[in-house]
Amino acid sequence: MDVLEEIGKRAKEASLRLGTLTTEVKNRALEEMADALLARQEDILSANRLDLEAGKESGMSSALLDRLALDPKRVEEMARGLREVAALPDPVGELVAGWRLPNGLEIQKVRVPLGVVGIIYEARPNVIVDAAGLCVKSGNAVILRGSSSAANSNRVLTEVIAAAGERAGLPSGSIQLVPLTDRESAKRLMRMREYLDVLIPRGGEGLIRTVVEESTVPVIETGVGNCHTYVDASADLEMALEIVINAKCQRPGVCNAMETLLVHEAVAGEFLPRAAEELRARGVTLRGCPRTREILPGTEEATEEDWYREYLDLILAVKVVPGLEEAIGHINRYGSKHSEAIITRDYQSARRFVSMVDSADVYVNASTRFTDGGQFGLGAEIGISTQKLHARGPMSLRELTSTKFIIWGEGQVRV
Amino acid sequence: MDVLEEIGKRAKEASLRLGTLTTEVKNRALEEMADALLARQEDILSANRLDLEAGKESGMSSALLDRLALDPKRVEEMARGLREVAALPDPVGELVAGWRLPNGLEIQKVRVPLGVVGIIYEARPNVIVDAAGLCVKSGNAVILRGSSSAANSNRVLTEVIAAAGERAGLPSGSIQLVPLTDRESAKRLMRMREYLDVLIPRGGEGLIRTVVEESTVPVIETGVGNCHTYVDASADLEMALEIVINAKCQRPGVCNAMETLLVHEAVAGEFLPRAAEELRARGVTLRGCPRTREILPGTEEATEEDWYREYLDLILAVKVVPGLEEAIGHINRYGSKHSEAIITRDYQSARRFVSMVDSADVYVNASTRFTDGGQFGLGAEIGISTQKLHARGPMSLRELTSTKFIIWGEGQVRV
Repeated sequence: MDVLEEIGKRAKEASLRLGTLTTEVKNRALEEMADALLARQEDILSANRLDLEAGKESGMSSALLDRLALDPKRVEEMARGLREVAALPDPVGELVAGWRLPNGLEIQKVRVPLGVVGIIYEARPNVIVDAAGLCVKSGNAVILRGSSSAANSNRVLTEVIAAAGERAGLPSGSIQLVPLTDRESAKRLMRMREYLDVLIPRGGEGLIRTVVEESTVPVIETGVGNCHTYVDASADLEMALEIVINAKCQRPGVCNAMETLLVHEAVAGEFLPRAAEELRARGVTLRGCPRTREILPGTEEATEEDWYREYLDLILAVKVVPGLEEAIGHINRYGSKHSEAIITRDYQSARRFVSMVDSADVYVNASTRFTDGGQFGLGAEIGISTQKLHARGPMSLRELTSTKFIIWGEGQVRV
Repeated sequence: MDVLEEIGKRAKEASLRLGTLTTEVKNRALEEMADALLARQEDILSANRLDLEAGKESGMSSALLDRLALDPKRVEEMARGLREVAALPDPVGELVAGWRLPNGLEIQKVRVPLGVVGIIYEARPNVIVDAAGLCVKSGNAVILRGSSSAANSNRVLTEVIAAAGERAGLPSGSIQLVPLTDRESAKRLMRMREYLDVLIPRGGEGLIRTVVEESTVPVIETGVGNCHTYVDASADLEMALEIVINAKCQRPGVCNAMETLLVHEAVAGEFLPRAAEELRARGVTLRGCPRTREILPGTEEATEEDWYREYLDLILAVKVVPGLEEAIGHINRYGSKHSEAIITRDYQSARRFVSMVDSADVYVNASTRFTDGGQFGLGAEIGISTQKLHARGPMSLRELTSTKFIIWGEGQVRV
């Protein structure tokens, strides 16, 4: 049996026992994992240094090196994250619905773990700990597959938390790392339907597209955020300005940051010059439609391609639209169904926008930057789903579960 | 633009409007569709006669011809089915959850349609009407793709219900049939991620496997049912006999019928001869493990292959097991995660079975034949999911929806 087959089999076996563990055992495992991270900090940091040195040698960008780097503060954050997950309510065993049939059968729809969750991710080693913590709490076995650039960090982190979890009573095989980082092993993982119940890619657009194309395991698509803010004709322009600046500049490199600004033509002449000034003062480059470039001479031209782009950078596409319908049409055509906002004082505009925009998170008079499990008050987050099946928007513990129908009878047969 | 692209685009456009229709409009459309089926019965039956003649000429089996055949009674059943869906509660707009954040943002999680649902199905033309009715009620556009053997019936049925729906206010493109029945067009449909939100295959194991392997559109796997009944050492054997006969014989050709009987060794010597007699009297052929064949001399041998089989026929695999754990292990290894039952008087056995068996529907002391949206009281059914993502077990209107987060603000920005 090869290594992937072995991992899959162990995970499946672990998952059947994991689903029956009490909340107490799972929480103790999470606390033990957190303690072990702190106790083994030196081993973790020296493994990470190996990855960082290899990264520097291979010419990795400083942004990527920063995402790869661990330090005592980041290790502590990982440990704190685990303790926060321990404090969240256990989703497993929740009675979702229950009723009695005329023939006396009692039906219960009960929340159960998904089973085995696969996570394929890039760069940041902390994803291992976050994902493993959420999977343990929701009773799932997890198979992690990271990139070669973080191989040493990933290996030591997994060893530390898996061993700690087992000491506290998790079945062996609950947390496993795929020790291979070649493309072929990732593709094999994507086709292991007999062992994996779901696969969650965490990373850039390229990774997500590959998983969606290649996987026969059910996938939850996460993360790509081409988010829009639409400033309506009736908008409070002071409020619009604050929200636009926040959505673009507060943290431009994340999926819930704004990438395209849409402005109603009735207010574009007044709003755009002020917005451009404030945004440019914060280092933002604008790319505009023809009308935008009339109002803001010297602005770069936005091509068709720009409307599709998730810049993750201080770049903003700007389009003047003749009205609400065109704004909605633009978002539904070019967006990635993540997060969109309307700034308006008009009751009908607000209602029509939230009803017609086909995205996971639709805002009235607020910044798209709030799309986040923590901000929403859901606790930790495994990702933000941009698909409609199973889960949509920020996903937390409950989104890592399925349900099961249990039917209690007294000898009923169908007539 | 080719025909599939055109269909996808029209469906997507229709879906955005469908999601905002009132329940009244949707119900009127369903009633109008039902009326139209009755009014156009002659056209429907003559189209169906063409399919039946072609089927006979090509040597189609009588079982398949029967599934293909329509008559006034079946047309009436389709119409009644639509009226029953009209009477069900509308899932769209349901507030699933809602809360206020400390910063004043109000978050609502609201039920919305999935968008565009693709259904690929085999043989039975009534699937068109059932599926279209459920999709209309749940606010989804539907793209139907049937087999060539029912092409004439499918075409006329779709024309009749689509036109009736539009007369009552459905947007054009809400109900469409793919006019191509070659394999290539099915594969194209499975990859139309830009237009389809979910694909549901309805048919045999081969069709479902193909869709799972080829589709990049998210799939809900339905229907294959290798269902088990386990007779525990403490079972009431009278009850067990009744349930076993019902689960195997009441309608052997459907997915919730029993395919394998597991019997605890402590009661096998008493139970199996009686069960065999009753089952054989009803035409059932048994295939047994070595121990079964000692108890029932002359019984055919069950091969490893048999434990995986969904016979959909009067054949039953029988295995004697040393205990509950082995029964659970057998089900989790060979089953299709559909429906399983334990017959027991023991409290711990019942609890352990429902907790450890990893299937959509787990019964204590009842026949697996109850796994059905109608029997469960959920109303009509689009299929029975055997996967864990999105929906598990019988799927009705709610399972054809997603959710959307709507966030109402007053200018909040993230700090």
